[in-house]
Amino acid sequence: MAKILRVNMTNLTVGTPQAEGNYDGLGGRALTSALVNAEVPPTCHALSNRNVLVLARGMVSGTAVPCSGRLSVGAKSPLTGTIKESNAGGTAAQALAALGLDAVVVEGQPKENGAYVLVGSPSGWELVRDDSLRNKSNYPLVDKLFKRFGKKASIISIGKAGDMRLSSASVACTDPEGRPNRHAGRGGLGAVMGSKGLKAVVLLTRGAARPQPADPQKLADAAKRFVALLKEHPVTATALPTYGTNVLAGIVNAVGGYPTNNFSKGQFVGVDRISGEAQRETILKRHGRAKHACHPGCTIACSRVYVDSKGKYVTKGPEYETIWALGANCGIDDLDAIARMDRLCDDIGIDTIETGATIAVAMEGGLLKFGDAKGAIKLVREVGAGSPLGRIIGSGAKLAGQAFGVARVPVVKSQALPAYDPRAIKGIGVTYATSTMGADHTAGYSICQNVLKVGGSIDPLEPKGQVEISRNLQIATATIDSLGICLFVAFPVLDKPEAFQAMLDMTSAVTGKPFGADTFTEMGKSVLRTERDFNRRAGFTNMDDRLPDFFRTERLLPHDTVFDVPDAELDTVFNF
Amino acid sequence: MAKILRVNMTNLTVGTPQAEGNYDGLGGRALTSALVNAEVPPTCHALSNRNVLVLARGMVSGTAVPCSGRLSVGAKSPLTGTIKESNAGGTAAQALAALGLDAVVVEGQPKENGAYVLVGSPSGWELVRDDSLRNKSNYPLVDKLFKRFGKKASIISIGKAGDMRLSSASVACTDPEGRPNRHAGRGGLGAVMGSKGLKAVVLLTRGAARPQPADPQKLADAAKRFVALLKEHPVTATALPTYGTNVLAGIVNAVGGYPTNNFSKGQFVGVDRISGEAQRETILKRHGRAKHACHPGCTIACSRVYVDSKGKYVTKGPEYETIWALGANCGIDDLDAIARMDRLCDDIGIDTIETGATIAVAMEGGLLKFGDAKGAIKLVREVGAGSPLGRIIGSGAKLAGQAFGVARVPVVKSQALPAYDPRAIKGIGVTYATSTMGADHTAGYSICQNVLKVGGSIDPLEPKGQVEISRNLQIATATIDSLGICLFVAFPVLDKPEAFQAMLDMTSAVTGKPFGADTFTEMGKSVLRTERDFNRRAGFTNMDDRLPDFFRTERLLPHDTVFDVPDAELDTVFNF
Repeated sequence: MAKILRVNMTNLTVGTPQAEGNYDGLGGRALTSALVNAEVPPTCHALSNRNVLVLARGMVSGTAVPCSGRLSVGAKSPLTGTIKESNAGGTAAQALAALGLDAVVVEGQPKENGAYVLVGSPSGWELVRDDSLRNKSNYPLVDKLFKRFGKKASIISIGKAGDMRLSSASVACTDPEGRPNRHAGRGGLGAVMGSKGLKAVVLLTRGAARPQPADPQKLADAAKRFVALLKEHPVTATALPTYGTNVLAGIVNAVGGYPTNNFSKGQFVGVDRISGEAQRETILKRHGRAKHACHPGCTIACSRVYVDSKGKYVTKGPEYETIWALGANCGIDDLDAIARMDRLCDDIGIDTIETGATIAVAMEGGLLKFGDAKGAIKLVREVGAGSPLGRIIGSGAKLAGQAFGVARVPVVKSQALPAYDPRAIKGIGVTYATSTMGADHTAGYSICQNVLKVGGSIDPLEPKGQVEISRNLQIATATIDSLGICLFVAFPVLDKPEAFQAMLDMTSAVTGKPFGADTFTEMGKSVLRTERDFNRRAGFTNMDDRLPDFFRTERLLPHDTVFDVPDAELDTVFNF
Repeated sequence: MAKILRVNMTNLTVGTPQAEGNYDGLGGRALTSALVNAEVPPTCHALSNRNVLVLARGMVSGTAVPCSGRLSVGAKSPLTGTIKESNAGGTAAQALAALGLDAVVVEGQPKENGAYVLVGSPSGWELVRDDSLRNKSNYPLVDKLFKRFGKKASIISIGKAGDMRLSSASVACTDPEGRPNRHAGRGGLGAVMGSKGLKAVVLLTRGAARPQPADPQKLADAAKRFVALLKEHPVTATALPTYGTNVLAGIVNAVGGYPTNNFSKGQFVGVDRISGEAQRETILKRHGRAKHACHPGCTIACSRVYVDSKGKYVTKGPEYETIWALGANCGIDDLDAIARMDRLCDDIGIDTIETGATIAVAMEGGLLKFGDAKGAIKLVREVGAGSPLGRIIGSGAKLAGQAFGVARVPVVKSQALPAYDPRAIKGIGVTYATSTMGADHTAGYSICQNVLKVGGSIDPLEPKGQVEISRNLQIATATIDSLGICLFVAFPVLDKPEAFQAMLDMTSAVTGKPFGADTFTEMGKSVLRTERDFNRRAGFTNMDDRLPDFFRTERLLPHDTVFDVPDAELDTVFNF
C-alpha cells in the first residue's frame, strides 16, 4: 500500500499518513502521474487551487539499491499544460523513505499570500507559517532553515521564481552537503508549489529507520552484482566519474548535433573552452572536486563541485545540458560565466535548460548579441529581481519568443528543446516530439544508440529506426523514473543483460513481489498510458507531437539535414 | 474573377494585378480565409516568412451599397495560432475597390529589417523603402505620408507595436478625416504586417473610377429600401447614432453581464460615469462630434469624435468594447483616461480589447490596483516605449497572465474575451468558445437575442437555445463580413425580412448573379468550413472550443450563475 501524506493548503491542515490502496505498488513517476491523472481536472489552470503537487520517492528509494535517491515531483505543468513529472537527486527521497512515506500530496491554495514550511520527523508532520521566508532565494533560505531545524535536514524548496509563480520555476533538493543544487527543473513545478504557498519541506530523519527490504539477503546479493557492473561499464565507470555529464560536449559537437546560437548551427567553435575536459582541468587546478555524489549510495558520482579562482564554492557541476544551454546555445564559451549563471539559476530556482533556451531566443530577438556573457548573467539576475524583463526570461522560451517577436522558437508543447539538435540526432527528435512531458531528453535518451552506441546502434542521420528506439527508451525510462533509480544506470542496463537482471532482482527483493522483465516493461507502458490519458483529456492530440516547423524546413550544418521522420511514424510511438 | 495584387517581400517585387479564378466571387472574409487556408502552411510560425497577409475589400465595398466600407485583414494569427480575419471601417476598402482590386496578398519576408510602403494609384503599384518610418506611431506616420502623398490618400498602417511584432498589434485604416483610428484590432495581424517589413499601404484614388455595379438601377432601388429600413429600426436609427456603441454600457450592466475587475463581477458601480449617456453629454458639452461616420456611404454614423476639455481632438468614439476593456474591466470610471488610452492604443497600434483585458490580468497579478487610471495609462505608454513591461502588456492577456502568475485568465484560443460575461449572457459564451477566431463577440453577436430582443428572444441565463442562436449568427456574420457590409445592419436585417431581402437584392445587383437567402447562408457556412479546416490542420480540436474552467466553477454575481452550456452541445455548433 502506498503511504501518503495529504496536506491541504486551503484549510492549512496536515493529514495523517495513510496507506492508500488506489496507488498500491507505485512509486516515483508512476505514483505522481497516477495521482495527478486521478485527482487533477485536466483542463484546470495549473496555478489554480484545483491542481495538486505530488512529491514522491521512488519505489526503491532509501534502500540499499545503488543510485536510488531520485525524488519525483508531479503536477499539471504551468509551462506545458501537460501532466508533468520532473525528478531530482539530493537526499530528499531517501529522507522521505526514512520517514515512512511514499508521497506527500499538496492540495488547495491558501486564501492569502504567505510562506509555509511543511516539517516532517519521526514524531509527526506539521505546517509552520513563516512569512519572512517569502521571496527568499534557495541558498539563504536553506541557511535559515538549517539554523532553525539543524544541519542534517533534507530540504525541498522553491526560490524566488516559485514565489513569483514563473513557468520556469524549479523545485530544489539539498545535496549531502546541504546545498540546494539538485533541481526538478523542467516544467515550472516550482510555480505550482509557490501557488500553494509552500516554500519548503523540511525532512528530519534523526531517529528514523531506513526502510527494510522484503528480502535483505537477496537485495545485498543483487546490489553487489549491480555495483560491479556499474564499475565495469566505460560510461559509468570512467566517462561520467572523470568528466561528469559534460563529457558529452565534445562528443555531441563532433557529430554535429550541438545546438549553437539558438539552434542555428550544429557545432560550436568555442566547444573546447566549455567541454568536460576543460571543466575537469579548471576544477582540478582550483582544487574543487572533480567527482561528487549527489546522494548517499550513488556509486557513479557524476557530479562535481565547481569553485572560483580562489577555490571558493560556486555551484555543482554544472551539468552538460546547463553548460550547453547557457553556453553554446547562447554563443558563450566562458565556463566561469556559465557556472555563475548555474548558481544564480539554482538560487533563484529556475530550470537551467529553459533559461538558456530563453536567453538564446531573446538574443535572436535582438535583446543581446550571441556570446554576450555579461549581458546573459544580467538577464538571469533580472529573474531574481522580479523585473518585467526577468518575468519574461523566467517564463520560458515560448513566452520570450512571443514577447520579442521571434519566429524560430525551439519548443515542443511549450517546453524548450534540450542540448541535442534533432536534425543531426533524429532519435532524440522523436522523443522531443512525442514525450508526454514536452521536449525532454531524459524521457527517451536516444543519444545512447544514435551516438554512444550503447544498447545498439542506429544511424543518427537516417529517419529509419528512430521511432523504435525512442519508444523502447520511453517505456524503460518511465519505469526507471518510477523505481527512483538514477537514469545513468541505463548505460550498463542497456548493454548487459546481467545488469538488467540485477536491477529486476533488487526491485523484487525490496518489494517482496516478483518483478521480471515483463513487469518492468508493463509498468513503463502503464505510466505512459496514464500520462497520455491526462494529456488527451487536457486537449492534446497527435498534432502536438510535432517539432516546430523550422526543424523540417531549415537545414542544419555541418550535415545539411532537416528532421524528416514522417509524422505518420511519429504517431506510432505509442502503439503498444 | 477576383483581382489580386501579389507583393513579395522576400524579393521586394510587386506583381501585376491578376484575375485569379480560384477565388472567383469571393470578397472580404471569404476571400482572406480562402487565401490563407490555401496558401499558408497551418503549422508554420505566424511571424515566419511562410505566413501571408491578405488585405481584401468586401464583395460590395466601394459601391453604392450603404455601410459597405469594411476592409478584411487575414493571416494566421500570432496571438491565437488560428486562421484570422479582422475587419475595420475607414476609407481603405472603398479606395481598394476604386483601384480595381479585390485583395492585396503580401508574401515572404525581407532579409533585413526595413520599412516599406506599398503605394497604389490608377497608374500602378510600387514598393517604396523608407526606413525613417520604422518604429513610428500611427498618427505621426500618417502625417508624414500625407505630406508626401497628399491629404486624400487612404492609408493602411501599423504603429510601433507592429514593428515590434507584438501579438496585440493592430492594422489601422484612416477615417474620412485622415485619422488612423479604425483598426482591424484582433489577433495581432499588425505583427504579421510588421514581420513582412510593410509599414503602410497608401491608396491614391485621384482619377480612379468607382466600380460599376452590374445593375445600377436595381442597386439604387434596393439601396433606397435598405436605407429607409436602417432609418426606421430603433437601434440603427436612434440608439447608435445618438449614443454610439457605448449605448450598451448601461444595458449590459443592467442585465449583470458587464465584466468588472477582470471578470470578477457582472456589474460596475462606476458605470454611469462611463456610459453612452455620460459620453454623449461630455462630448456635447465640449463641442466634440456626437455623431460621425467612419466611411462615406455610412447612414448609421455610430462613431463620434471625442475631444478634451479644451475642445481638442483626442480620439474617435471610444467604442463600447474599448470603454469596457480599459474601463469597467480595470475598475476605471474616468472617461477622459479611457479616451487617452484609446488614443494611445490607436497610435501605438494595439487592440483595445486585448490591451484592457491584459491590464486587468496584470492588475489581478498585483502590478496595479483595480481602478488605477494613471497607472493604466502608464502601462499603455510602456507598450509604445517597447520596454520589457510594454512587451508583456502588448502581447495579450494570456502571456501577461503567465508572466504574472495569474490563474484567472479570460481567453479562448489565447484571445481575450470581450465585453460580455458568458455566465450572464450565455449565447455569447457559445460564440466565444467555438468561434474560429478565438473569443470574439462580433463572430456571433448573441446580445441581439439574449439582451436586445432583436431577431427573437432567448433567456440569457438559460443554457437552452444558445447554441442555435450562436450557430445562425456565426453563419450570417461570416457572409456579412464577406460582403464588406458593417455588421450593424444586422439589427434591421434580423428583425425585418424586407431588410434582409434588400441586402440580397443589392448584392445581386452588384455582382450580376443571383444571390438569394440560400446563397447567403451557404456562403457563411462555406467560410466557416474553410476556417475550421485551417484550424483543424493547425492542430485545433473540439477541446479548444471551450471557455476557461473558471467560468464553469466560479459563480458570477448578481445572478449567481456559471456558464453551463454542456460541452457536448458546444460540439454541435458546426453541425450544418
